[in-house]
Order: sequence, then C-alpha cells, then structure tokens
Amino acid sequence: MKRIFFNEVVTRDGFQIEPEFIATDAKVALVDALSACGYAKIEVTSFTSPKAIPMLRDAEEVMGRIKRVPGVEYTVLVPNLRGAERAMESRADELNLVMSTSETHNLANLRMPREKSFAALAEVIRFVAGRTPINVSLSTAFGCPMEGDVPQAEVLAWAQRFADLGVRGLTICDTTGMAHPAQVARMCDALQDRFAGLQLTLHFHNTRGMGLANVLAAVQQGIVRFDGSLGGLGGCPYAPGASGNICSEDAIHMLQAMGYDTGVDLGKLLAIARALPGIVGHEVPGQVAKAGPSMQLHPVPAAVTELRAALAFS
Amino acid sequence: MKRIFFNEVVTRDGFQIEPEFIATDAKVALVDALSACGYAKIEVTSFTSPKAIPMLRDAEEVMGRIKRVPGVEYTVLVPNLRGAERAMESRADELNLVMSTSETHNLANLRMPREKSFAALAEVIRFVAGRTPINVSLSTAFGCPMEGDVPQAEVLAWAQRFADLGVRGLTICDTTGMAHPAQVARMCDALQDRFAGLQLTLHFHNTRGMGLANVLAAVQQGIVRFDGSLGGLGGCPYAPGASGNICSEDAIHMLQAMGYDTGVDLGKLLAIARALPGIVGHEVPGQVAKAGPSMQLHPVPAAVTELRAALAFS
Repeated sequence: MKRIFFNEVVTRDGFQIEPEFIATDAKVALVDALSACGYAKIEVTSFTSPKAIPMLRDAEEVMGRIKRVPGVEYTVLVPNLRGAERAMESRADELNLVMSTSETHNLANLRMPREKSFAALAEVIRFVAGRTPINVSLSTAFGCPMEGDVPQAEVLAWAQRFADLGVRGLTICDTTGMAHPAQVARMCDALQDRFAGLQLTLHFHNTRGMGLANVLAAVQQGIVRFDGSLGGLGGCPYAPGASGNICSEDAIHMLQAMGYDTGVDLGKLLAIARALPGIVGHEVPGQVAKAGPSMQLHPVPAAVTELRAALAFS
Repeated sequence: MKRIFFNEVVTRDGFQIEPEFIATDAKVALVDALSACGYAKIEVTSFTSPKAIPMLRDAEEVMGRIKRVPGVEYTVLVPNLRGAERAMESRADELNLVMSTSETHNLANLRMPREKSFAALAEVIRFVAGRTPINVSLSTAFGCPMEGDVPQAEVLAWAQRFADLGVRGLTICDTTGMAHPAQVARMCDALQDRFAGLQLTLHFHNTRGMGLANVLAAVQQGIVRFDGSLGGLGGCPYAPGASGNICSEDAIHMLQAMGYDTGVDLGKLLAIARALPGIVGHEVPGQVAKAGPSMQLHPVPAAVTELRAALAFS
C-alpha cells in the first residue's frame, strides 16, 4: 500500500474564479470539514491583493478561524513580499509561489515577464529565509494555450533555479489540461532524476478528459504527491464549458481502488463533495459523488427477484 | 506509430437509451459522417425487437440507407436467432452478441439466466456458421453494480466458451464504469495470454472518471481495439447524472497526442461531435469538443500585446 499525498486546492484554486463570493463562514466550514478527511495538505487561500482576486479577500479571516488539525499542512498562495508577510502573520505552514514557464502566459496571468516574476519570488524566498517551507508552482509546464509547446528543458531550467534557492517543493502544473500521459511520464522521470531531494507535486486539469490518465502515468513513474480540487472545481478561462482541476474525490477513488493509501476517508469526502453544489450554487464536474464509489452496490431490482423465484419453480 | 482501432457505438449504445426517438434521417446522416472520419468499425444499430428498444426500431432502414465506405466494418447488435436473420439480410459486416458475466445483471438486463443466454447465442453462432464474423461482448466484466466483484476467472471462462465456438472477437465491457487501471492491466494480460488469436476489444465507461485512465492501462498492455461513443453518449441506469461510455473523440485525442495512429481525422470528428447536442437535444459529456484539441492555440490577448510593447520601450 504505497502512500499518496493529496493537496486539496478547492478553496483557493477553485473558489478564486467562482462568479459569486463564497461567504467566509462557508469557506471556514469547508476547510474544517476537509481537515477531518485525512488530506496531507490544504491550500486554504491566497494572499494576493483583494483587488486582484476579490473572491479571496477574506484570506486573513479564513486563516484565523480554521481549526488546525495536526498532520495537515495549511498552505497559501503568495504572489509577492507583501503577501508573504501577510501569510506568515497568518501562520501558514507553507508558502506556495507561482509563475509560468511560458512568457506569454506569465504576461497574461501575472502581467510581467518571467524574469521579473522570478526576481520577485526570489526576494520572497530570501525574506522567508527558512522560517517557513516554500513550494513553487510552475504553470503551463506541459504546454501554453497561446504559445503551444513548452519544452521540457525550459521547465527543468526554471525548476533548477528555484531548487538552487533552497525551496522545499516544486509543483509542476498542467494549467490548461494540455498534458498527455506519455509527456507526463517523460516529465516525471526527468524531475525525479534531477530533483530527488525535493517534494515533487503534480497538478493536472481535466480540460480534455485526460486528468486521471495523467495521474496514472505519474504514479506509475513513482510520483506520490498530487493537487486536486473538490468536485473538479476551478479551471481555465481559455476553455469555456470544459472541466477544471482534476476532481480530488475521483482521483482518490481511483487510487484507492488500485490499492494505494491516500490517507483520505472517501466516505467523508464524498459527503462533503455532495454539499459543494449547494455552496457554489451550480453543478460541478466530479463523477464519483454522482455515481457513488464503485464498491457501493445497488439493490437488486424487484423484477430480478421475481424472475429468480419464477425460475426456481419452473 | 502503433495502430489503434476504434469502434464507434454512438448510434447503437448511445441512442438506445435516449429519451426521444432520433429521426432515421439523422441516424443515417450521422453514420455517414462517422464513416468519413476513418473509424475501423461502426456499431450502427441493434436488431432487437422494436418493443424492447423502440429507439432503434428503424434498424433495417438505417442499415439499408447508410453509405458503406470500404475499410469500415458495419457491425450490429444481435440478441437472438431472429435478430441474426434480420442482421444478415441487412448485410451487416459483423454480428455483435452480448451477455453478462454476472448472473444478476444478466437477469436484470436480458431477463434470463446466463446459461440460457449462452445457449441462445451459441444457436446464433451455429446458424451463422462462418458466413459473417461474430463478436461477443461480455458485460459487467469488471464488476456488477448489484453483485459487486466479478472474478477475472469467471470472465475468462465465459470468454473461453465463446472462443471454443469459433468467434472472431471478444469485447470485454466495463458496463457501469467500475473498472480501475490496475484491474484493467491484469485483465488485458490474461486475455492476451489466452486469446492471442482473437480480436480483443475493450469497452469502458467513464461513470467514475476512470475511462481514459483505463484506456491508457489497456494500451500499455498492448490492447489495440476500443469501443467509444461520440460525445460520451450512453451510460447506465444505475448512475443517474454520471457519464456514460468513454467519449470517442476524447480517447482518440489522447491517443493521438501520445503518438498513436488511430486512423481517425480528429478535426472532422470534432465537427461532428459539436453537432451532437443538436441531434439529441441536450448537452453531452465530451470535453475536447468544448475545449478544443490541446494543439489548437488560443489568440494572445490584446493586453499582452500592449504589455509587450510597453516593456519593449521601457
């Protein structure tokens, strides 16, 4: 039973693009419920400017009110020095920094060239100076919706620059669901060869239906850390109508069925997932919450029972 | 570039459970459009009694009116001797027979014990006597929604009985989306060891999001034949709200991205998939038709172009 570690990103990555503000009470209650499920990590919120992401303008309050469960790491997204100060005041267990490996996507998403992003994030890392572990998420690592291919060597080079600054972990992100399993296998091989000492997390989207196939390809190469979003919430503005992040409960269901130990109580998680449409006010892409886990049996129809009885007497 | 062969089942497996009758003209036009895409096989319709499946009551007319494209096999579902006679009069290229490996599911679905189904199908095989190739689809081969586990040995035993009758192919069906990749890998290994001389097809559902992960697991074991349904249409009555069959265009998109040769023109197929909601009158689960293929780039936003210009002058 190999251990797999899940990082739940729904309240950050999922909620940040919701059209309606999710009440702070609902966010706190959701994080607390997720904490009781056995996640290794929860990305709670983002310390960006409230103007940039108004949906997460209650970052301090959420971090202040959640119940910290021992064994669960509470990580937060941090875009810059000011965000890092706020995050550390909020006693985040980890700071997650993000930039794109594609210049065009970085310009579109962060409004600056990659070198400027790198400089700003390096400043954060020097400021934190080992007081709190740092994870760096590299976006569009499997392709950019505007530039197309992002060479694996380019991703590895950016990863190396952050590794050289002493970060604890790297998250390699398929931001818009362009990755395919063969590409994932190659990337995971290269990452593990080069960054064996770091926590390596894979972040997939299900935009084109390949999310769980990519999880499979990654676990086959020995990757044990994944981001997932409850209900498959989240997504990318370049693919309207398409699915977003991989659905945590669907990924956990698959891996548990295969015999992996995710540490997560799937029954509890599904109960929370089934409440999610009520929180966000719309349907979500997750499948297992609708269909039920594969090991949950359905009752035998009355017609079959009658037929069996008839056959027994014939 | 390993060749993968797709069998498109939307007009049979997809349409048979649609709530509204699809006009014969629309069925014929759809099969003709699919024929032009490069499929290896199309399961056109079912020669069941019009009372049992009223949605496919126009089986003869559809088979009579479609344009046969050389290189495409037109297969049909056949439940019994009467169906086989009708199918052969309609010049089907292949007869697809079906029974469940689970007794309860066979009783629920076919209203008879498995032994009685086997006897009826054996009668069909003897009647056809080599005049038309026979494929046998074994349902619930990865689990029964009512019984739970279906032992692999049970599936192999039923497969062996049909192999002994001289069928050309076997389709191993995950009828309600219970299969997981580790189970699929074990099954594919066993099937290929034992039935190397037969055409082996895998039929997956995406009920719990594992459809394409299971396709990946199967191709990794060397399986080259798959059923798929345009738009992911179809499904099972035991999982309301959940996805049905794996979506052909999503599976083909993934395999092509990985470098496999599916023989299918993905651009043509996506154009057809995008027309499907108009034919059936509701949304369908397929993702790539909504998001576009991963290699299709999006325009660079004007804001990025302006930012680049500003940076060049700064």
